[in-house]
Amino acid sequence: MDDFVFYSPTRFVFGRGTETQTGSLCAGYGAHKVLIVSGQGSAERSGLLAVVRGSLRGAGLEICELSGVEPNPGDVLMRRGIELCRGEGADFVLAVGGGSAIDTAKGIAAGARYGGDVWDFYCKKAAVTEALPVGVVLTIAASGSEGSDCSVITRKEGHLKRSVHSDLLKPRFAVMDPQLTCGLPAWQTACGAADIMSHVLERYFTNTKDTELTDRLCEAVLLTIKNEAPKALADPDDYGARANIMWAGMLAHNNTVGAGRSQDWNSHKLAHELSTLYGSTHGATLAVILPAWMEYAIDRDPLPFARLAVRVWGIPADGRSGADDGNADPAGRSCGLPADRTALRDLGLRGIAAFKDFLASLGLPTSFSDLGAKAEDIPRLVAMTGVAQAPKPGFFTLDAQAAEAI
Amino acid sequence: MDDFVFYSPTRFVFGRGTETQTGSLCAGYGAHKVLIVSGQGSAERSGLLAVVRGSLRGAGLEICELSGVEPNPGDVLMRRGIELCRGEGADFVLAVGGGSAIDTAKGIAAGARYGGDVWDFYCKKAAVTEALPVGVVLTIAASGSEGSDCSVITRKEGHLKRSVHSDLLKPRFAVMDPQLTCGLPAWQTACGAADIMSHVLERYFTNTKDTELTDRLCEAVLLTIKNEAPKALADPDDYGARANIMWAGMLAHNNTVGAGRSQDWNSHKLAHELSTLYGSTHGATLAVILPAWMEYAIDRDPLPFARLAVRVWGIPADGRSGADDGNADPAGRSCGLPADRTALRDLGLRGIAAFKDFLASLGLPTSFSDLGAKAEDIPRLVAMTGVAQAPKPGFFTLDAQAAEAI
Repeated sequence: MDDFVFYSPTRFVFGRGTETQTGSLCAGYGAHKVLIVSGQGSAERSGLLAVVRGSLRGAGLEICELSGVEPNPGDVLMRRGIELCRGEGADFVLAVGGGSAIDTAKGIAAGARYGGDVWDFYCKKAAVTEALPVGVVLTIAASGSEGSDCSVITRKEGHLKRSVHSDLLKPRFAVMDPQLTCGLPAWQTACGAADIMSHVLERYFTNTKDTELTDRLCEAVLLTIKNEAPKALADPDDYGARANIMWAGMLAHNNTVGAGRSQDWNSHKLAHELSTLYGSTHGATLAVILPAWMEYAIDRDPLPFARLAVRVWGIPADGRSGADDGNADPAGRSCGLPADRTALRDLGLRGIAAFKDFLASLGLPTSFSDLGAKAEDIPRLVAMTGVAQAPKPGFFTLDAQAAEAI
Repeated sequence: MDDFVFYSPTRFVFGRGTETQTGSLCAGYGAHKVLIVSGQGSAERSGLLAVVRGSLRGAGLEICELSGVEPNPGDVLMRRGIELCRGEGADFVLAVGGGSAIDTAKGIAAGARYGGDVWDFYCKKAAVTEALPVGVVLTIAASGSEGSDCSVITRKEGHLKRSVHSDLLKPRFAVMDPQLTCGLPAWQTACGAADIMSHVLERYFTNTKDTELTDRLCEAVLLTIKNEAPKALADPDDYGARANIMWAGMLAHNNTVGAGRSQDWNSHKLAHELSTLYGSTHGATLAVILPAWMEYAIDRDPLPFARLAVRVWGIPADGRSGADDGNADPAGRSCGLPADRTALRDLGLRGIAAFKDFLASLGLPTSFSDLGAKAEDIPRLVAMTGVAQAPKPGFFTLDAQAAEAI
């Protein structure tokens, strides 16, 4: 296990009707004037924003608002939010929405306290040393941004999708009412499930040894999505399924399942470029890129792919039972798994096929062409990743050749 | 899933040599004079206390010290710590040790800021509204107190072992260097493993529905202890095993695996009374009481016991494969599990037997007589629990009859 610091100070207030606590939570963290950041009107139409405004006013807080955040959120609206924040003297930024609203709110919180250009944080010219406090009322289970230290923003100029990480961007609180996700359309539910699984899988494939506990935790979250997402699609109002998915989305990305292991975020990187070029939904893009990345990566080391096939996808190992009995031989190989590489690879490929079938069963795209991607764009996409100049380390090193093959 | 608040603000600094960061961590949380609380000399002999003192002085901090904390820590030393803290003007309490040192440090931190008798917190006469900040340098993986809101102290007068819970008692930071646990004697390692498993199992058996995710997380931690504890016993210097166990110990008790589910802490309650009466080690007491509790509780609902048998102990379900394929039928019963109650019960009992075999393989006691407990003390033990007057709710209601039977 690698050395690590785990720090997740967010207060998660989870359950039915918790959005009515928003005002007292903001006040408890010292807010006087709250900037509400929201999306394209669904929170207004559902009545959620009215509840949140009422709760804030009931706690004696002033309000200003920024709405219209789009999927794959951009820098233009974020900059407008920073100006609004300064002009109004807001001292707390509250996201009401999903990952796009939260990531925009985080960028505003950092930018409002920074003398330079906010994009400096995203292109790594500057580190965040100060930020306004951020709170969240979550409406979609997907991004995990409610518990993460990360904001991902697309710069309109130059089609650049980039991220910033800082402990200062971790929300002070996140209100998580699964009822707010009941009735979400099937497409958004499915994209959210793919996003959550990707956050786990990008932690799962590691070169770190002795990761028994976090392996198991990753598998726990994957099994949960495997079992609960179909329930939420079959009955959009299934509270239990929505609750499990919502909490899984947070755990998938506050690093509970990734502490102490090297991680590989290159498939997310590739997905960002595809989303930027084709405007495809983040979760749908991941549904296409992840299996492709896995089919390429399995030749680096088939063991974790075989383990995943057995433990999560229930594929019988080596003609024996489908059970992983939880034991491991001294080399760390799970008992029940075959010993030779070819058999491990075959098992792993069957797991990847099961994963693709699962994603397809959720109604997600399974091929690059489904995203509108064209073969002739591949050189341009590879160029956008910049891996030709700077190959990216990970489970395997992503260079131009690998990116092209994927 | 039940509504819940999850809040775990502790900064966990995990890995090799992290104890050298203790000074800068204390200083970062505003300390000027630190009260070091430690046990019966092992941290002095190992040189750890010298390292910690050096780190604190290097950060410009003053030091005062309280040593001699015993297992099942008592109120007398805690009260002495409170006086010392006040007399010296310490503004930060640092535990260097395991659960006993941490729980004593937490009690001192709360008591130092309280005008009344510190026992008021433990007998629920008063709630903690203020406390000095607490930090931890952990030397044993067991109690999970490094990430919990809880302090358990035994009052000498009247043989009372009682607990207090407060967000204010959550440590600001916990330094967790698995190397400090390498070389721990087999007995302490085994008792720690039993304590960690008990913290999970007391969350596992629940009457809450729709707990797929936390079921899986509980099983992940149990599988980890099942696989890693024997490695640590076979090779006390196995860093990977020690690291997995240490991090599992934290996750088992900061409520990561218990969020949103009703819990049953009655077996811990019974264990406290046994430890108080016979002075038995907490983990060893749990190794005896837990299986006994389970054998009684299985008649309340055999399903979770059968699920545990299959998923954690690898017992084949219903003559089929030992695999749990991760699916569940609409009634929430795991596929692969038998449908009738008698078969579920049989399966569950085989799981409990496997658990007992596992505990025995770690060298732990398996019967009440191993603890020195006598049949004629049963009425006295039952009377100490107070359940005759106030039966305790849980997975099943613990009344005098149930306590006696267990």
